[in-house]
Amino acid sequence: MLNQIELRKKATQVRQATALAHPNIAFIKYWGNQDHALRLPVNPSLSMNLGALHTQTTVTFDDSLQHDLLTINQQTYASDEPAYQRVCHHVDIVREWANIATSARIESSSNFPVGSGIASSAAAFAALSVASSAAAGLTLTEAQLSQLARRGSGSASRSVPTGYCEWTLGNDVDSVAVSIAPPDYWDLQDVVVVVSQEHKTVGSTGGHQLADTSSLQAARVVGAESRFNACREALLARDLARMGAIIEEDTVIMHGVMMSSHPPLYYWNAGTMRIIQATQQWRSKGLPVYFTIDAGPNVHLICEAAHVQAVVKAAKQLPEVQDVLVSGPGGPARLI
Amino acid sequence: MLNQIELRKKATQVRQATALAHPNIAFIKYWGNQDHALRLPVNPSLSMNLGALHTQTTVTFDDSLQHDLLTINQQTYASDEPAYQRVCHHVDIVREWANIATSARIESSSNFPVGSGIASSAAAFAALSVASSAAAGLTLTEAQLSQLARRGSGSASRSVPTGYCEWTLGNDVDSVAVSIAPPDYWDLQDVVVVVSQEHKTVGSTGGHQLADTSSLQAARVVGAESRFNACREALLARDLARMGAIIEEDTVIMHGVMMSSHPPLYYWNAGTMRIIQATQQWRSKGLPVYFTIDAGPNVHLICEAAHVQAVVKAAKQLPEVQDVLVSGPGGPARLI
Repeated sequence: MLNQIELRKKATQVRQATALAHPNIAFIKYWGNQDHALRLPVNPSLSMNLGALHTQTTVTFDDSLQHDLLTINQQTYASDEPAYQRVCHHVDIVREWANIATSARIESSSNFPVGSGIASSAAAFAALSVASSAAAGLTLTEAQLSQLARRGSGSASRSVPTGYCEWTLGNDVDSVAVSIAPPDYWDLQDVVVVVSQEHKTVGSTGGHQLADTSSLQAARVVGAESRFNACREALLARDLARMGAIIEEDTVIMHGVMMSSHPPLYYWNAGTMRIIQATQQWRSKGLPVYFTIDAGPNVHLICEAAHVQAVVKAAKQLPEVQDVLVSGPGGPARLI
Repeated sequence: MLNQIELRKKATQVRQATALAHPNIAFIKYWGNQDHALRLPVNPSLSMNLGALHTQTTVTFDDSLQHDLLTINQQTYASDEPAYQRVCHHVDIVREWANIATSARIESSSNFPVGSGIASSAAAFAALSVASSAAAGLTLTEAQLSQLARRGSGSASRSVPTGYCEWTLGNDVDSVAVSIAPPDYWDLQDVVVVVSQEHKTVGSTGGHQLADTSSLQAARVVGAESRFNACREALLARDLARMGAIIEEDTVIMHGVMMSSHPPLYYWNAGTMRIIQATQQWRSKGLPVYFTIDAGPNVHLICEAAHVQAVVKAAKQLPEVQDVLVSGPGGPARLI
């Protein structure tokens, strides 16, 4: 009798955790994998968490569930949708680590619009990793959380530690991100200039698999290491002029690889190019601002806090600009 | 007395020649030199002369002149202007080859606007080479004329032979262009879409010297040889789909090198990027057209004659387009 009660209790056991994570903007880009399944990158990368933007995710392991349930921004996903499969596959890793088989309810929402030029998968998989591992009863180190997040989305590894983060090469266990400076080390701002809200036709996961088809990728990888070291040094010296030249070079090199892959990936549009040109004009007039561009058309303008107003004002005057978001540095992925 | 008359006759001896040459559009680009003074390229290139466009140049060696006189499109150039010095330096080579010291009157005019996205120096130095060598009494082979033209402007070597030309690697004597097919071999058309008439801030000569400062240039050079071979084969097979993919890749790789050089060269503007994107949309709707872009913002749309009207119409609907020029294949540089 006691035994039956114990069993019934176990059958309805519920464990829940909620986590919050910020997206990040890469100064040295991640593009291409040594191992696609494990998302082990071919080059080190460097980024800043975006404190004003976040994704919040609640994971509830519930023995009464027959299968996982996924809701993103109030929208429920069916089990045959790619997002559902990617998320459940990620929770499977956590279940394996925790040695459980329980299904989960996963509810996630972001305070930034989809298609805003913010890589939503980084914040999503960082928050999912922190919430799901805690709900599963695991106590993971930051490195383990970064490893776990990386397996869901490479750049999510960089959304786990705080502030400014580097993600270095290694195997499944040690290719993880660590913080090189806290958010208050330097008040850099990311002015995200939205020139298109269309969904990209080739997502990052597919793009990474195309990287090696470009005849420029090998040279990009070789150069990325020295750009990474130089950018890291400039960042720690709070030298925006030096850092800015490196991040722009790194961006155009990544897009050169994209545009020369087979098939080619053209993420830039007319608005992107207008902002690239405008950035140089603004600088020539004394406004210290530098661009970086992820796998999409929208442009991230990087400047110090003192120049945010001027950058936002200048950006809003360009014809293709649909929206502008601003964020300073952010903290780590964390339970809330 | 006779002697004096002979002397006077000699003192007023006049030798004149007029030549015409077409600009060319490169399918495989020339970017970077092994030897800047001799303009020996780091990679082979491939082009089509543009028959509808030409530069006509008259060179008159006149013993009565104290120094060279240069007129381009009815505008006279002073001796301290870069264009004057570049042209006179070129005529100096001819004087050296002909063993004369006579000054010359050089009058040149083109039927296409400056700043139209047509590399005017190719036609200019091809016409100048043919006219000045003939006026100096030299009888040069096509290879020697191509060599001479190359020393004035690298791509001018390709405007000397007829139709479709390849310019291969070599030393001063054998790095010259030869025709691989006459103009009537294939009725390809270049629809030049003008999105800016501003003069470029960094000309090609300066740009070639920056090529080696890009970390992508070595990879570009390695890849250029196979692109050259594949493009040559596709051209001779009149296979536009195959050729088009190669010329677009070659273009974005060259611009990747330009944008990642130190300092970076951003030749593209918003209109350029809009046309790059539009070209892919047009193709997806069944219009077989491919882009190529020289060291400037204007875009050359390459298609077969049957599709010129549709391409021109489509291009004119894009907001940044200021002008559209059309040309089919052209003949060699020649005396007229």
